[in-house]
Amino acid sequence: MANITKKVSWSSRGDDSGLTGEGTPLLNGTEIPKPSRQLSGSGSVFRIGRFSTVDLEDDITSEEDPIRGRPKEIPHNEKLLSLKYESLDYDNIENQLFLEEERRMSHMGFRCLEISRWVICGLIGILTGLIACFIDIMVEKLAGCKYQVIKENIEKFTEVGGLSISLILWAVLNCAFVLVGGIMVAFFEPIAAGSGIPQIKCYLNGVKIPRVVRLKTLLVKVLGVICSVAGGLAVGKEGPMIHSGAVVAAGVSQGRSTSLKRDFKMFEYFRRDTEKRDFVSAGAAAGVSAAFGAPVGGVLFSLEEGASFWNQMLTWRIFFASMISTFTLNFFLSIYHGKPGDLSNPGLINFGRFESDSVAYYYYELPLFMCMGALGGLLGALFNALNYWLTIFRIRYVHRPCLQVMEALLVAAVTATVSFTMIYFSNDCQPLGPEHNEEYPLQLFCADGEYNSMATAFFNTPERSVRSLFHNQPGSYNPLTLGLFTLTYFFLACWTYGLAVSAGVFIPSLLIGAAWGRLCGILLASFTPTNPIWADPGKYALIGAAAQLGGIVRMTLSLTVIMVEATGNVTYGLPIMLVLMIAKIVGDYFEEGLYDIHIKLQSVPFLHWEAPATSHWLTAREVMSSPVTCFNRIEKVGTIVDVLSNTSTNHNGFPVVVQVLDSDEPAKLCGLILRSQLIVLLKHKVFVELARSRLSQRKLQLKDFRDAYPRFPPIQSIHVSQDERECMMDLTEFMNPTPYTVPQDTSLPRVFKLFRALGLRHLVVVDDENRVIGLVTRKDLARYHLGKHGLEELQLAQT
Amino acid sequence: MANITKKVSWSSRGDDSGLTGEGTPLLNGTEIPKPSRQLSGSGSVFRIGRFSTVDLEDDITSEEDPIRGRPKEIPHNEKLLSLKYESLDYDNIENQLFLEEERRMSHMGFRCLEISRWVICGLIGILTGLIACFIDIMVEKLAGCKYQVIKENIEKFTEVGGLSISLILWAVLNCAFVLVGGIMVAFFEPIAAGSGIPQIKCYLNGVKIPRVVRLKTLLVKVLGVICSVAGGLAVGKEGPMIHSGAVVAAGVSQGRSTSLKRDFKMFEYFRRDTEKRDFVSAGAAAGVSAAFGAPVGGVLFSLEEGASFWNQMLTWRIFFASMISTFTLNFFLSIYHGKPGDLSNPGLINFGRFESDSVAYYYYELPLFMCMGALGGLLGALFNALNYWLTIFRIRYVHRPCLQVMEALLVAAVTATVSFTMIYFSNDCQPLGPEHNEEYPLQLFCADGEYNSMATAFFNTPERSVRSLFHNQPGSYNPLTLGLFTLTYFFLACWTYGLAVSAGVFIPSLLIGAAWGRLCGILLASFTPTNPIWADPGKYALIGAAAQLGGIVRMTLSLTVIMVEATGNVTYGLPIMLVLMIAKIVGDYFEEGLYDIHIKLQSVPFLHWEAPATSHWLTAREVMSSPVTCFNRIEKVGTIVDVLSNTSTNHNGFPVVVQVLDSDEPAKLCGLILRSQLIVLLKHKVFVELARSRLSQRKLQLKDFRDAYPRFPPIQSIHVSQDERECMMDLTEFMNPTPYTVPQDTSLPRVFKLFRALGLRHLVVVDDENRVIGLVTRKDLARYHLGKHGLEELQLAQT
Repeated sequence: MANITKKVSWSSRGDDSGLTGEGTPLLNGTEIPKPSRQLSGSGSVFRIGRFSTVDLEDDITSEEDPIRGRPKEIPHNEKLLSLKYESLDYDNIENQLFLEEERRMSHMGFRCLEISRWVICGLIGILTGLIACFIDIMVEKLAGCKYQVIKENIEKFTEVGGLSISLILWAVLNCAFVLVGGIMVAFFEPIAAGSGIPQIKCYLNGVKIPRVVRLKTLLVKVLGVICSVAGGLAVGKEGPMIHSGAVVAAGVSQGRSTSLKRDFKMFEYFRRDTEKRDFVSAGAAAGVSAAFGAPVGGVLFSLEEGASFWNQMLTWRIFFASMISTFTLNFFLSIYHGKPGDLSNPGLINFGRFESDSVAYYYYELPLFMCMGALGGLLGALFNALNYWLTIFRIRYVHRPCLQVMEALLVAAVTATVSFTMIYFSNDCQPLGPEHNEEYPLQLFCADGEYNSMATAFFNTPERSVRSLFHNQPGSYNPLTLGLFTLTYFFLACWTYGLAVSAGVFIPSLLIGAAWGRLCGILLASFTPTNPIWADPGKYALIGAAAQLGGIVRMTLSLTVIMVEATGNVTYGLPIMLVLMIAKIVGDYFEEGLYDIHIKLQSVPFLHWEAPATSHWLTAREVMSSPVTCFNRIEKVGTIVDVLSNTSTNHNGFPVVVQVLDSDEPAKLCGLILRSQLIVLLKHKVFVELARSRLSQRKLQLKDFRDAYPRFPPIQSIHVSQDERECMMDLTEFMNPTPYTVPQDTSLPRVFKLFRALGLRHLVVVDDENRVIGLVTRKDLARYHLGKHGLEELQLAQT
Repeated sequence: MANITKKVSWSSRGDDSGLTGEGTPLLNGTEIPKPSRQLSGSGSVFRIGRFSTVDLEDDITSEEDPIRGRPKEIPHNEKLLSLKYESLDYDNIENQLFLEEERRMSHMGFRCLEISRWVICGLIGILTGLIACFIDIMVEKLAGCKYQVIKENIEKFTEVGGLSISLILWAVLNCAFVLVGGIMVAFFEPIAAGSGIPQIKCYLNGVKIPRVVRLKTLLVKVLGVICSVAGGLAVGKEGPMIHSGAVVAAGVSQGRSTSLKRDFKMFEYFRRDTEKRDFVSAGAAAGVSAAFGAPVGGVLFSLEEGASFWNQMLTWRIFFASMISTFTLNFFLSIYHGKPGDLSNPGLINFGRFESDSVAYYYYELPLFMCMGALGGLLGALFNALNYWLTIFRIRYVHRPCLQVMEALLVAAVTATVSFTMIYFSNDCQPLGPEHNEEYPLQLFCADGEYNSMATAFFNTPERSVRSLFHNQPGSYNPLTLGLFTLTYFFLACWTYGLAVSAGVFIPSLLIGAAWGRLCGILLASFTPTNPIWADPGKYALIGAAAQLGGIVRMTLSLTVIMVEATGNVTYGLPIMLVLMIAKIVGDYFEEGLYDIHIKLQSVPFLHWEAPATSHWLTAREVMSSPVTCFNRIEKVGTIVDVLSNTSTNHNGFPVVVQVLDSDEPAKLCGLILRSQLIVLLKHKVFVELARSRLSQRKLQLKDFRDAYPRFPPIQSIHVSQDERECMMDLTEFMNPTPYTVPQDTSLPRVFKLFRALGLRHLVVVDDENRVIGLVTRKDLARYHLGKHGLEELQLAQT
């Protein structure tokens, strides 16, 4: 199973260290991993909920050993915390080089930087909009061709008999598309699977997910999502837009492409994690904006997911990128649809226009909406639970790329078959109206001038089906059609999410919700046939869609705003908010949100907004990792190389200490230096002795660090000769001389607050003599979470 | 002038210390104030821009002394930073008492707290909505009566002649209303003057503005704004709603009223600055929401103004309060208007419905909109500059309450006279249509069946005038009317803002902008009479309104969303954003935003989002105040009383140090204690000796601190006998044992980031032995700002 976990993890082939081959089993599951990183001395591998009253230092190992010995109790993956993921360095490294550069820079220089930030955000918006446009047009073309061919085929065989040939044609076409998409994802870039929202959430949270913002990922994502949607899977193209926007932002803001080995010598100032993460948040917002035509929702999404860094100017820039993105999409799609200047396509999904007159709600409908919210929460929790088990199953048994592709093909074939069967056995015929001209109405066994109503739901891109459910005339669907559709689509969507294809879950959720919401509306209308307020089931479809989506993804403020912007009508603000709130409360009672489940299953050290409420009795002393590997201010090169090469620890930040000459006094903290900085120093051989001998040697500049960013070479690639090992390195100029510190008695919530608010990667714990006694990193904080039985502690694992 | 500054400052009569009588001149202006608070040793009273290259420690006093001697160079108030304003304690005081309480609390306890937070937010929303409803109905009733009486009078005298009697009637009625409002504000609660937005901005920024969230302030504010609007001044009732919401929140969340001396024994946990500030942000959001029907805009407003504390759950609660607020208003107003269930009054200002068909914009109109944005920025800057000079004038000469009331009366009379004159001399007659039934059309000298178009703009509440400008038929106004109206209203509004009445500037700004925007639309249409896209001047009125408002208040994201929500149409998102952005850029080039000007004129130590860009060369050592008054862990009562009684320093936070027994080593930092805590300790006589003698004595609990919050008694009111002065106090249990610290070499931006992100009040600067060498407070950071000539340093003053 260890191997399996490795296989399906987001970074499977992105493991830069390359220490383990494809098939090498890693420590996980049956064997308890050796706590090989800087671990706390206080029983860090156990659940501590039960021990809250006993002294953690004593008597634990004996009690816990039996559990360790039981090989049957394989810890679930979500009870592990992977050590593979590193944090982003959101805290500026304010070393001498940096300060000198900042001090040299004039007021004008800062203003120019600010202007370039705006330019970059504009570019992010434009490119994201263009990508969305490309995806939309490609999907429409391909799906259009596909449905046209099948429709003609079905029409041909409806009379003659032998519709099984049509079914086979449909299934084969679907499989062909999915095959292409699946191969790309499974073999070339597994991180491009799924919607990408969990990955972007993690990135904005401050976790460095390997390969997530690379150009290759973007290409596979874009082509993959076209294939999945054209392949008729129960997926949407909206989630992947968020990921795409983030990749665009990460690329544009760096002014170069490491993959293409092109450096445009632009925006060099922004080549560090702080700036990059800010731009990525703009890109994610632009993606949301293009996907739903919801610029404000995009901004709120970015803020909800990663605001260590709320800042007025930044937010305003994010908003700018979002606006430009939706405008670009709108502009080009309007031209594509032959109505330039009309600007009626602000997003990929278009909910259509909800006129406030026809679908106004009354306040006595609010309790009804709230019940629907609760139902959405329940169904969402069911969806998530099913998907959770499915994902566990996939982690165990479907981990090879070829198996993943085959599963995708199976799903594609089953989707086509089920859809066809449903359409075939449905006898819900409706008169053909003018509103169906842009769809693919199937006549099938209906009379002339009529069409099969089930087919509008299944034989269509999901976006169009949603729109039909929102806006088609009352009576376009009969209740049985809707019920069957909900049921089948629910399971199809649940099966589909987590496949090795690029695909989002927003649209399927909306579709399921819209179907049962409309069903609710129809049933209500049938109880009180005379009351005109139940007249329009489209209103209930909207509420149902919101409830189902909220129940699955559990987003709050941003989702409300996204829905409101997508409907283009602010009057629905209150009901949508209420529905989402109820759905979240009900859903959270049973199961977490879908994205959170997937983040947990990947064992990502995700930091929530606040420390667990009941964690005040923990202090930095218990939480921190110790002992800490420190360097002296002037350190021997050999020592540094040895520490960096030690694969069993793999530390990334090292406190720098200064030894008082009178050597019995312990060393005091004087700075913090990162692995990446040391690697650059070693690469450029910045040794004290060399500096003396070659006086004319160029001084190391920030540029050298920026050039190496973000793919710092591994220590193994740097050759240090035996002579050089005896040299000394002076770290004074390069270390951050003022790292944030906390005393050892600081409570966990206080440590957490500091860490989270400033987006730190390392927080040094010192005693009252300013001596280093520990180091708090992301894992030390993410380890604690509030389980059903109080505070729990996750295990740390290498995978 | 010193006296004057005192008079008009927000907290004039809120000075709790009561050290100076009403007429006592304070040190300010002609005399340079003694730097009597903990001041930096590094020349803190000078502009340091010029000295950036010299050593700040030396040679400054001699050079600067001549400037000090010059009595003519009165420093402007905005170059001062008042020492009168304290920070809120947003950082939790995690002392032993607190930690014990938190540790005792179960998971269920925290959940109950969370639920009460939601309940409080719901209450805030409901009460804010009800207040908005009350204001709206009262204004409508009173203004309705007034206009009806005057209209009948005018109609009577139009035929007969002698319209001067009507003018006098109008002026007298206006003056009567304004007199009541002015007296309340000027004599009873000066802090209720104006819109209250600057004050709430400061509060959310973390500045404790005295009396700003008291019940009396709320009463005066609500009644005052009814009087001002009914009195026909060029004011709006929207700004004050934000202040009202904030007061409601501060009151409800505490579960008691100190003013009414009622304690409901509820919500005691929330009696501290941290929680209160969070609730106040919800209240401000609820206020915005009720004012504009913009719940999302409200949330964004709160976040833009004070997000040290962005937190998902908090934001969601804020959103809940906003939604409830607008729903309550909507619900009751709908009932009041006789259309229950219609829910068409989400806010106090109703922009009316912008149907997307009739007023769609085309992308080639965007450059045009941007030009209007630039115009708005220019006009806004002009408005702000005029108001700035006017405010300076008022600070100097109009400082007595009776003078302030008289100025308000003068403005009321002039407003009535000017309006009457404009209407009288206007001959813009328009046919009376069905859309005028809810207004007060004046026929005056027009033919029967026609009405005077100028009168719809002047003879109306400003909200209705705005709506008319947005929606009346093309041709309802002729260009001359609009031009004259813009001109007069611009100056009237500018004169009115800053009077001693409760009044907002949003609606006047919108009205001015709508007028010239409509004018632009009409002119454009007249250039190309055949092109139908210019057909509706209402669209241009909207853009003009946004431009003018943006040019005056310079809000960004939140204002965009507020405008979009108020129009109820998301398609205007992009143009409104562009317009606001251009208006801000153009306006900022000339002059700051109106609220910022008023904040600066009050010398509030307001912290912006980031430290000035060019401040990297400053370190904590230069910025901090030193020497610091410290206490020992076990300190003599006499010493504490003496320090607290020292009015010349008036420190609020004291590092607690521990002396090593071997006394030649300096003391090390071990905690931080606040003045308010010491006062409670002294009041309860928590002395070591007493504890020994009376063993049964009740231990001091957090409840004692909470009961004293927020109006801690002054030290003078606590009697400490001579014997007690010899006692000792043990601070260990009460001090915060883990205050945040920074090393002395930390750069200013880094200090700033820590301080701002965590909402600190005191930040201790330590050396590498953990000895206290300085203290950074809000003033030390707010002192530095980026002026036109680089980094400037503000002077500190007692007033």
